[in-house]
Amino acid sequence: MPVTAASLDLTADLYCQIQQFYARQMQLLDDGDAGAWAGTFAPDGVFAANAHPQPTRGRDAIAAAARRAVDELAADGETRRHWLGMLAVDPRSDGSIGVRSYALIFQTRRGGQAALRLSTVCDDVLVQGDAGDWLIRYREVTRDDLPSAADTAPRSS
Amino acid sequence: MPVTAASLDLTADLYCQIQQFYARQMQLLDDGDAGAWAGTFAPDGVFAANAHPQPTRGRDAIAAAARRAVDELAADGETRRHWLGMLAVDPRSDGSIGVRSYALIFQTRRGGQAALRLSTVCDDVLVQGDAGDWLIRYREVTRDDLPSAADTAPRSS
Amino acid sequence: MPVTAASLDLTADLYCQIQQFYARQMQLLDDGDAGAWAGTFAPDGVFAANAHPQPTRGRDAIAAAARRAVDELAADGETRRHWLGMLAVDPRSDGSIGVRSYALIFQTRRGGQAALRLSTVCDDVLVQGDAGDWLIRYREVTRDDLPSAADTAPRSS
Repeated sequence: MPVTAASLDLTADLYCQIQQFYARQMQLLDDGDAGAWAGTFAPDGVFAANAHPQPTRGRDAIAAAARRAVDELAADGETRRHWLGMLAVDPRSDGSIGVRSYALIFQTRRGGQAALRLSTVCDDVLVQGDAGDWLIRYREVTRDDLPSAADTAPRSS
Repeated sequence: MPVTAASLDLTADLYCQIQQFYARQMQLLDDGDAGAWAGTFAPDGVFAANAHPQPTRGRDAIAAAARRAVDELAADGETRRHWLGMLAVDPRSDGSIGVRSYALIFQTRRGGQAALRLSTVCDDVLVQGDAGDWLIRYREVTRDDLPSAADTAPRSS
Repeated sequence: MPVTAASLDLTADLYCQIQQFYARQMQLLDDGDAGAWAGTFAPDGVFAANAHPQPTRGRDAIAAAARRAVDELAADGETRRHWLGMLAVDPRSDGSIGVRSYALIFQTRRGGQAALRLSTVCDDVLVQGDAGDWLIRYREVTRDDLPSAADTAPRSS
């Protein structure tokens, strides 16, 4: 691990802040507030996923993509709940925070049976905004059912 | 949000106390100890749910309802596990704590396959008892598969 | 509860350390690093389960068993995610920590549908190693679908 990303001591304050951050973030998305959800990303934040051909870059594009997803779910009478847990929080010497976690998506149709939709791993880099709040600078979501970026990356040698 | 319910600073101590509270609370219920579980509600606590026509009011009534549910599960050889997570904890200036969380119920029959039963949202108001312990004054559980109270409330205008 | 195991005050520092410990531990296992995963057990650690006829004793035996499981999953193109949550953390006066938690195992085959595999209860005793890190001295995993050790133990009276 490079010196600039060395692990620092993890405090309870930080660990709880991050847990609360994710709880609020996912509730915003699941409640359909795509704009507020996208506001938890840095203005130049990036959302990458092994389910997407290209990363989504910038808060505005992230908000637009979330808005489309929220509208489709509402049209289908579908509720999703994003559970993010098993947080390994890694404070770095540049002030950013690496977080590797697991995320599950559960879905329920009105009048239907709750079901597990997806199991994923979520790798985030968080930074602090001017107001002291945490923002996602980079998120990479790896679905367990799809090849990972590492599996499919062109060999550099 | 009214002044009397303004958000205060959330400490790690409080966040962890609430996590531990829920872990113990749900383990009591899933272990079949309906009386001790009901003891985590205030004496005048209320349990409301969009699956119930009326809220259950008071610790004694909450205990009686839980006892019936526990006995039915035991008769069926069924184990349930209540997972409560994604806690958004909101300390209020009156000393109470609002917590909005997600709760999943998993069930397993002896010799059978574990399954997801329900996905819900849990809105709690917690208060401190005389012994400094947390107690639920009001709980509202909204199942994702049923209309929410907001969806079905009579219009006030 | 005997005097030597009396509950002590639980601090946020400890609660968060334990959460982070489990996140890293389970990520090691799910990433297929059986050796590093076994390194989170004490050298004389014990892994007991109601699915196993006998406990596995010692870090080396635990590593060997995990290696076999990891290799089988890799051969099957199967990913597992161990979710451990609802932690009731109980510091004891001898410096060890009792933790009773719930653990779910989710599995996804490449190109397949994510599914819940098992619901379990996990009873751990953790001790601190020389480097200040937490180690599992004793783990007992009780699958909800199988009889528990208590159900099948010979009566002592």
